[in-house]
Amino acid sequence: MPTAPAALPHVLIVGGGFAGLNAARSLNGAPVRITLLDRENYHLFQPLLYQVATAALNASDIAVPLRAILRRQKNVSVALGEARRVDLDEKVVHSGLGPIPYDYLILATGATHSYFGNDAWSTSAPGLKTIEDALDIRKRILLAYEAAELEPDMDVCREWLTFAVVGGGPTGVELAGALAEIGKHTLANDFRRIDPTQVRVILVEGNARILNAYPEKLSEKATRHLEKLGVEVLTGAYATSLTDDCLQVGDRIIHARTLLWAAGVKASPISDTLGVPLDRAGRVVVEPDLSLASHPEVFIAGDLAHIKGADGPVPGVARAAIQAGIHAAKGMMSRVNQTPSHPFEYRDKGSMATIGRAAAVARVGNWNVHGWLAWVMWLFVHVIFLVGFRNRFQVMMGWAWSYITFQRGARLITGKKPDLRSNASKTSVPVPHTAPHTATHTS
Amino acid sequence: MPTAPAALPHVLIVGGGFAGLNAARSLNGAPVRITLLDRENYHLFQPLLYQVATAALNASDIAVPLRAILRRQKNVSVALGEARRVDLDEKVVHSGLGPIPYDYLILATGATHSYFGNDAWSTSAPGLKTIEDALDIRKRILLAYEAAELEPDMDVCREWLTFAVVGGGPTGVELAGALAEIGKHTLANDFRRIDPTQVRVILVEGNARILNAYPEKLSEKATRHLEKLGVEVLTGAYATSLTDDCLQVGDRIIHARTLLWAAGVKASPISDTLGVPLDRAGRVVVEPDLSLASHPEVFIAGDLAHIKGADGPVPGVARAAIQAGIHAAKGMMSRVNQTPSHPFEYRDKGSMATIGRAAAVARVGNWNVHGWLAWVMWLFVHVIFLVGFRNRFQVMMGWAWSYITFQRGARLITGKKPDLRSNASKTSVPVPHTAPHTATHTS
Repeated sequence: MPTAPAALPHVLIVGGGFAGLNAARSLNGAPVRITLLDRENYHLFQPLLYQVATAALNASDIAVPLRAILRRQKNVSVALGEARRVDLDEKVVHSGLGPIPYDYLILATGATHSYFGNDAWSTSAPGLKTIEDALDIRKRILLAYEAAELEPDMDVCREWLTFAVVGGGPTGVELAGALAEIGKHTLANDFRRIDPTQVRVILVEGNARILNAYPEKLSEKATRHLEKLGVEVLTGAYATSLTDDCLQVGDRIIHARTLLWAAGVKASPISDTLGVPLDRAGRVVVEPDLSLASHPEVFIAGDLAHIKGADGPVPGVARAAIQAGIHAAKGMMSRVNQTPSHPFEYRDKGSMATIGRAAAVARVGNWNVHGWLAWVMWLFVHVIFLVGFRNRFQVMMGWAWSYITFQRGARLITGKKPDLRSNASKTSVPVPHTAPHTATHTS
Repeated sequence: MPTAPAALPHVLIVGGGFAGLNAARSLNGAPVRITLLDRENYHLFQPLLYQVATAALNASDIAVPLRAILRRQKNVSVALGEARRVDLDEKVVHSGLGPIPYDYLILATGATHSYFGNDAWSTSAPGLKTIEDALDIRKRILLAYEAAELEPDMDVCREWLTFAVVGGGPTGVELAGALAEIGKHTLANDFRRIDPTQVRVILVEGNARILNAYPEKLSEKATRHLEKLGVEVLTGAYATSLTDDCLQVGDRIIHARTLLWAAGVKASPISDTLGVPLDRAGRVVVEPDLSLASHPEVFIAGDLAHIKGADGPVPGVARAAIQAGIHAAKGMMSRVNQTPSHPFEYRDKGSMATIGRAAAVARVGNWNVHGWLAWVMWLFVHVIFLVGFRNRFQVMMGWAWSYITFQRGARLITGKKPDLRSNASKTSVPVPHTAPHTATHTS
């Protein structure tokens, strides 16, 4: 006579990013009960987040509800809440929803911005990790032009039309390129008093070259593409002081009223609650199979993990997170089945970054490409890896429309808005009809 | 010898809705300098706002930047700021940007919600007038299901799955229909513990019938369509008390944790600052040509104006606002040219409202239609009147995708989220895998 089956093991996956979502999906049909906990109700395709920040795409073009993705996978239950603390000994994750006990844990909460000890800079120079970040940055960019149009003081007006990006990695390069295009093309004819094509965009990088992780030749090409767009590229230059309207880089002072931060990341703060060895960026140092040495039932994947690869640590990119998430799920199942687990090996297929309209750099294995061909490759790779037919279609249509019209489809300023003129009560609003484009022409 | 031309008259248009935008556009090429002041940077196609609130469309699908619309019309300058007070004698509008003097004023700031003296209800039962309102309502609807999934108390769970809409006009009817569909179709398979198809939607209307402004036969048809979707329609029923989780209608108590307000509108508060006669809803009583009797250089258009028509006041619908905006601009130009102005006549072409998937009611002149044909008419009319090719295309694609898949494309919960369980620290989160759909089945 068959006995009643024991309850299936409960696997808690924290984080619905590339690592956590792919861990969950790879367990489709496995004899476990999975809870996927995320503080958002969607999976975000982060590589395109800068396009939301620069008004080219909608948030929902690159974000898909986790429940919709996992609807048919009946062994997964999605819970909307924030993980706050892990108690490894009690096997419990404490969350905004209350304590969640687990038999196996896959922790994949990712990374957040790092201001290298200057956390006060975060309000002046926001970073780009979440949808809310992207909508805030979009608002700042669009409001800067609105404020410039209404500003009688020519110096202040020029500060509104100056944008500085700190950090010359892929995100910084992509933001700088898009910022230049917004002024040169998208908004070129939309104002009456200012001339948006006079926009100044400055990209600041601490290393000797931008795209430091790419081959040197591609860094040069990227610099040239950016300079063709009018971006000023400063390398070997560290931000030493930063306020709402001023950035100091060495002994150089940059007066800019929109500052964006793309310089550093650190692991999400939950790693501090584990009581296990972390690297300098707060990432958890894991065993070769991605588990914790002290707790073999716990696996860490994605940007939260410090994974040793053949050529140094595995980089914090989407492909690596996807591979690590799937590997962690396999390792976890080998614990369930009491079979040996295998070391993780990152298969690096290359990397790519766009630099505005019809230009990109890409490394595919040892092959370096740049310009239009790299851009087309970039388009295809990103559309293919987006989740969901609708999103692929919407993103392709959005890009096609932008390419043809030079416009951007999501130029809305949403949320709270400040009054644009601080001296509002004193002077009349200029009625800019008689002498167009006077404000930004230097004499 | 020709003398230097005097400066062109300055026309200030306040409000970029249907009335203000169309006033501005109809003045293309006119010998005036126009400033269009709006507190948002976009024109909003309000008739589709309920589709943003119910996750079917993106905000940017129905909102187009005013600057983009008016880019080529060189006599218009757009300013982003909020009008606060009009000084008719000084000919100045005081705004968040400072004072703006005018020679001619077209005031079209529209309407806002009215809670009939119970303003405290607004936090419990938000209304739907702005993009921010729509995103807030979307968040409330989606979070209600998330909370229900995690709620151990069966009674509370049922309250989370109960939605009540106060007000049975077109907006209320459209919201109620969409709310029913979200549970019955969109989310049907997305949860493990609750059964979203058990959703309860209640529509409360004070008049004897919903869609009171429509022919009686169409009200009946709309009621029948709603009931087929599972919506409970209560007529002749006024809300007498309202809290976060409870609505009292006469002696009936409705326990619902998501309440939406679609019952009343009043004129935007700037009308109070004019010192001219207003109607009970705060709308400005205007002359037949839409100007103020005391100040012929000031015109009022759209929902801010109380316009007497042949069959009572002109209704607050998009078509009427468009016509009034254009008429006000014409009247204003007749003042400039010192020619007589003409009385406004509303050309009523009909009205229509959708009731969920493939059902609508429409009146075209004296012809009444309902069901599938009315729905197709509704689709075409709304796509045609959207501004911009891209928006028409995106909305059509979004609708086609939703129609085929029963899905909704913008199911994101953005902005601040509360913790979903108030008793979070005490009990473990239920791991809902073993007995699906127990929570909402009544015994």
